[in-house]
Amino acid sequence: MKRLVSLFLAGICTSAMAAQSPKNIIMIVGDGMGPAYPTAYRMFADDISTPQVEETVFDRHLVGMASTHPDIDTGYVTDSAAGATALSAGVKTYNGAIAVDVEKAAVGTVLELAKKQGRKTGVAVTSQINHATPAGYSAHNVSRQNYNEIADSYFDDKVDGKFVLDVMLGGGWKYFDRDDRNLIKEFQQAGYQYIDEIDKLDQAQPGKPLLGLFADTGLPWALDYASKQRLPALTKTAVSQLENDKGFFLLVEASQVDWAGHANDIAAAMWEMRDLAITLEWLEQYVENNPDTLVVLTADHSTGGMTIGANGNYNWLPSILTELEHSPLEIAKQVLPSADKVKLASTLLKFNLTDEEAQLVLKPTEQKALTTAIKQIIDARTITGWTTGGHTGVDVPVYALGMGREKFIGHSDNTDIAKQIFELLNAK
Amino acid sequence: MKRLVSLFLAGICTSAMAAQSPKNIIMIVGDGMGPAYPTAYRMFADDISTPQVEETVFDRHLVGMASTHPDIDTGYVTDSAAGATALSAGVKTYNGAIAVDVEKAAVGTVLELAKKQGRKTGVAVTSQINHATPAGYSAHNVSRQNYNEIADSYFDDKVDGKFVLDVMLGGGWKYFDRDDRNLIKEFQQAGYQYIDEIDKLDQAQPGKPLLGLFADTGLPWALDYASKQRLPALTKTAVSQLENDKGFFLLVEASQVDWAGHANDIAAAMWEMRDLAITLEWLEQYVENNPDTLVVLTADHSTGGMTIGANGNYNWLPSILTELEHSPLEIAKQVLPSADKVKLASTLLKFNLTDEEAQLVLKPTEQKALTTAIKQIIDARTITGWTTGGHTGVDVPVYALGMGREKFIGHSDNTDIAKQIFELLNAK
Repeated sequence: MKRLVSLFLAGICTSAMAAQSPKNIIMIVGDGMGPAYPTAYRMFADDISTPQVEETVFDRHLVGMASTHPDIDTGYVTDSAAGATALSAGVKTYNGAIAVDVEKAAVGTVLELAKKQGRKTGVAVTSQINHATPAGYSAHNVSRQNYNEIADSYFDDKVDGKFVLDVMLGGGWKYFDRDDRNLIKEFQQAGYQYIDEIDKLDQAQPGKPLLGLFADTGLPWALDYASKQRLPALTKTAVSQLENDKGFFLLVEASQVDWAGHANDIAAAMWEMRDLAITLEWLEQYVENNPDTLVVLTADHSTGGMTIGANGNYNWLPSILTELEHSPLEIAKQVLPSADKVKLASTLLKFNLTDEEAQLVLKPTEQKALTTAIKQIIDARTITGWTTGGHTGVDVPVYALGMGREKFIGHSDNTDIAKQIFELLNAK
Repeated sequence: MKRLVSLFLAGICTSAMAAQSPKNIIMIVGDGMGPAYPTAYRMFADDISTPQVEETVFDRHLVGMASTHPDIDTGYVTDSAAGATALSAGVKTYNGAIAVDVEKAAVGTVLELAKKQGRKTGVAVTSQINHATPAGYSAHNVSRQNYNEIADSYFDDKVDGKFVLDVMLGGGWKYFDRDDRNLIKEFQQAGYQYIDEIDKLDQAQPGKPLLGLFADTGLPWALDYASKQRLPALTKTAVSQLENDKGFFLLVEASQVDWAGHANDIAAAMWEMRDLAITLEWLEQYVENNPDTLVVLTADHSTGGMTIGANGNYNWLPSILTELEHSPLEIAKQVLPSADKVKLASTLLKFNLTDEEAQLVLKPTEQKALTTAIKQIIDARTITGWTTGGHTGVDVPVYALGMGREKFIGHSDNTDIAKQIFELLNAK
């Protein structure tokens, strides 16, 4: 009897909750953020002065996991384009596809539906704004490599006669200010304000559409910013510009978790995760103050085959990572021309190199090899493993908070996430 | 207003559900089963004649993920003993500890509480029954390595004057039939029936306590059984022996997912996962018929740093694994003394070796090296990566079905799982 009452109440409960459409939806993609990344971040962020490992903002909002494979004629491991198409349109496609199906026909995205409904729309990313993930929500193209075409489409393609995006924040000068076309000027002439420095984001005029580009392609690593963060600033500005009576849909991407994974760079990866964690902490407060907002965070796939512990060693030692002020790339840039490479590397890494480590730093004669050597030293000291410079197929974590979060509990396929968002957008 | 109603109903719903104690609790540990294992199993089990990837039994019951680190003075990567103690007693301890805390004091387990409450108790595992995980629920020892002491304690230590375990199924002749003590005879004299062949499990007399040992230490790989499974048989027998009016607590362990991970053996790993999946499918039916039963499945840690895809290759190709009838270990045993090693290896692997693969098979002169060579061939063909012969620290998936499942939704620490089970045991 008790059980029947429970089931009855659960039924009422679920239907009552399912009936509402959130005013605002913020979809976050932690690109490449397989399950080892938030786990490692918990250890990286751990307050070692306490006996417990502190819960992270990710832990508070975990609701499930998602499978990520693309259309299976492509295989079981997705790229970011097919991943974005699954998450944006609910459609499995081939690797490289930007919101087109296996027949190369355009498929409608949740961002486009939100726009049709009169909501404002935006993207805030640390890659170029026409990179695979934001493009997968905002454009349609047979190939992610067609960067210029995708940039053009942000201006040329309209949704019900309107620009698809009201706010665009990220990198991309190379594609928006070209010899053959200056999209920045075209957007300005069409009424958009343009900002080219993150520090000037607070000068954005409320209510006016906004294009903000801050780098040629992607932004520098979070670790190489003095503040060690940039996604929170992009997200706050995007939200504040998008807020309006009819609501908004915002795509946020921590684009460079993936890039750190491709580079097998655990230092850059952890600081990218921190940039994302601070963003999510701010959104947690935002949802508290705006309970009619839904935030969903997932990854499109995992990158690098990163493991916490390696080579038979049962530990992981992130403490040297928390001390860093520069990425391995930046350290290599500075060390390469130095008269005393070992001394400068020790200073920048904040630990004394062993003789063996010193040999690794002394040997390379060009920057890429020196960056690799520094990453090897960090991997050995932290006990980090990697199996690939590409992607892997492991299911990824799903986080949700705010109105409608219960729809994402349990196992989802990545296409289910789009389907649930379509349903929430269409709800009363 | 709608939102207030939802919250109100959610509140009623949760409290109504939380008030009940399941009659039967079945805790399953997929030892070493990090998130890549159930994902890989989905691909391994995929029906390639359909365009979609079929949902698995794991997918239907995923509710969250759990962190697994031991007491942090030990580091961030757990072993199975500290993992079992966290899951059984809700206490973080040092690696190697069997249900004792960092001060080496015994800590009470959920299995012991169930026994005190008058429920029957059992373990059904594919390792020896005194291995770290079952021991972590049923014994107390400062070291998992004290196998004889732990076996002795199953007979000598009592809970409220009763044997701690009514049903014990797994391996362990080496520890239970020793020169210095024959625990099998002692159990028989104390009223237990003893069975030493899996095929004779159906001869167990209902209602009489049962000791079943089927191997010197762990059972052979699932892949080396003609039926390719043994955990379902152990679990069905354990459940049927334990069923009684007062309910039961059963610890099931798919012990050898971990062993396959340590061995970096993707073939053995996938067939161990299948053995577990069939067990869970049977339990899914059992819960359907016995809705007062709770089943919780998680892992104690991940093993091997296994990745789906490796070395920059965006795919994973499990089809050769599904064809196998013998483990790499068994194939090596057969191939080593053969006059035509390459031909026999091709026959047993069910694909023609390339010249390069043939060289790998021809070179080794002893079994271990040949087993390694065969695993390397399989890794390369399936595109499987590994980073360690030990454990890694990634969060593990949590699955739950039946009465009380909602308590395990979201992120848990492994100690939270024990705490929730204690609470459910103590509920009215």
